[in-house]
Amino acid sequence: MEKAIEDESLFALALEAAARAYAPYSRFRVGAALLLEDGSVVTGVNVENRSFGLTNCAERSAIYAAVSSGNRKFAAIAVATPDADYPVSPCGACRQVLSEFMSADTPVVFGPDYARAVHTTVGILYPYDALHELADDDNA
Amino acid sequence: MEKAIEDESLFALALEAAARAYAPYSRFRVGAALLLEDGSVVTGVNVENRSFGLTNCAERSAIYAAVSSGNRKFAAIAVATPDADYPVSPCGACRQVLSEFMSADTPVVFGPDYARAVHTTVGILYPYDALHELADDDNA
Amino acid sequence: MEKAIEDESLFALALEAAARAYAPYSRFRVGAALLLEDGSVVTGVNVENRSFGLTNCAERSAIYAAVSSGNRKFAAIAVATPDADYPVSPCGACRQVLSEFMSADTPVVFGPDYARAVHTTVGILYPYDALHELADDDNA
Amino acid sequence: MEKAIEDESLFALALEAAARAYAPYSRFRVGAALLLEDGSVVTGVNVENRSFGLTNCAERSAIYAAVSSGNRKFAAIAVATPDADYPVSPCGACRQVLSEFMSADTPVVFGPDYARAVHTTVGILYPYDALHELADDDNA
Repeated sequence: MEKAIEDESLFALALEAAARAYAPYSRFRVGAALLLEDGSVVTGVNVENRSFGLTNCAERSAIYAAVSSGNRKFAAIAVATPDADYPVSPCGACRQVLSEFMSADTPVVFGPDYARAVHTTVGILYPYDALHELADDDNA
Repeated sequence: MEKAIEDESLFALALEAAARAYAPYSRFRVGAALLLEDGSVVTGVNVENRSFGLTNCAERSAIYAAVSSGNRKFAAIAVATPDADYPVSPCGACRQVLSEFMSADTPVVFGPDYARAVHTTVGILYPYDALHELADDDNA
Repeated sequence: MEKAIEDESLFALALEAAARAYAPYSRFRVGAALLLEDGSVVTGVNVENRSFGLTNCAERSAIYAAVSSGNRKFAAIAVATPDADYPVSPCGACRQVLSEFMSADTPVVFGPDYARAVHTTVGILYPYDALHELADDDNA
Repeated sequence: MEKAIEDESLFALALEAAARAYAPYSRFRVGAALLLEDGSVVTGVNVENRSFGLTNCAERSAIYAAVSSGNRKFAAIAVATPDADYPVSPCGACRQVLSEFMSADTPVVFGPDYARAVHTTVGILYPYDALHELADDDNA
């Protein structure tokens, strides 16, 4: 499975990134590794704030960094949450931002480690994104 | 269908609320009507900001207003987007906030009008919310 | 001082609202009381989320609720943080949202209690808001 | 003025970054250049979203990228807004995030170009950040 192998190395980078998380308020570190279409990887971490609402998640840190350096096409994303003992899915805000730049079939893998990771896609995490198409197809 | 009737009156309140939206930047008005467990309704609108990132959606305005007045149990939410000609689903940030207070089977209805509205649930809009449960059930 | 008296009753409403805060993650409750131009008051509380970045502050909850009910002109805001033992100022996101709807001289009062509250204005909390005006006046 | 020279080259990097902004909704591009304590520079751009509230500003993109790569000490930030014809100050959310990582005297420069840029500091943009200190000094 080429894909699974690719995910494992990508996940390893996400896990490594999690060590750099700025999470003094939650003590819950998250790392993300975003695979660009050219094969390179951009990582991100959660960056918290004493005003909790200004906190940014690892997934979005990676997306914003990649866009800032001129990239807008992404092939996959891995999210590692080593402080949990079960898979913690990307939050809704991240699903929204992923869906701005990724097609529905873009792979997403998330978990506390690779053995327990969930393999899914942007479209599964963020359904009902393109209802105008549904409407065209007679959504009634 | 008791449920459908209930939704229609709820949706009408969401549509009415949309007229109060503060949307000078997008010109895209949204109204939400949140049904509390006691049968009363709290409405919300999108409130935009010249720094786009500080914009708040109608769904969250309704939730925040309801919590501010002491309510945390919600039975359903309707979202009206009269400026679209197809159903526009709640954004990921709103799905996240809904899922904080609502169970997976809580009804959500959204659309430009009731005739074209999509009937769904919080759990469908926000999947993978409770993976610790899955993990307990041997998610491997 | 008519103003100080007015603030004291407004602050009391903010303090009362703080008891309704949804703050299970920070245990830091905040209440806000927003004085409308017609003399009525809308209150708000902080509404946290397990994804910290989706947290909303009390000040914004009050603004969003007031706008949702059709109000856009505000005379003053009081913010109570009973879980601190010193004045905690509105966060930057709230300053931004206040500045969207309030003039620079709108009074803001914040503190753990009224005796220790700081009295200031939107313009002091959010400087450099209208640099196009400065530019018109030859800002060089 | 060593400082002014430093700012000019930093500003130039911010201006260059602005060309990479993802701003399809506002058509208002912003670039930021964050000077790390080791003398290297991390740039950021605004990354908008069709759900406006998920938009991220250039200043925060730079901070999140820098933290993600293991940096938390910053010496200065420059913000370029080439689509305005006057200086547009960092929004409140960005001021809040800057203040999490920067001391009050950290230089901030912002403008449509360097000739018209405003030179200020984090402390001036975000006053009342440390009222516990004031309280210690008899804030009455």
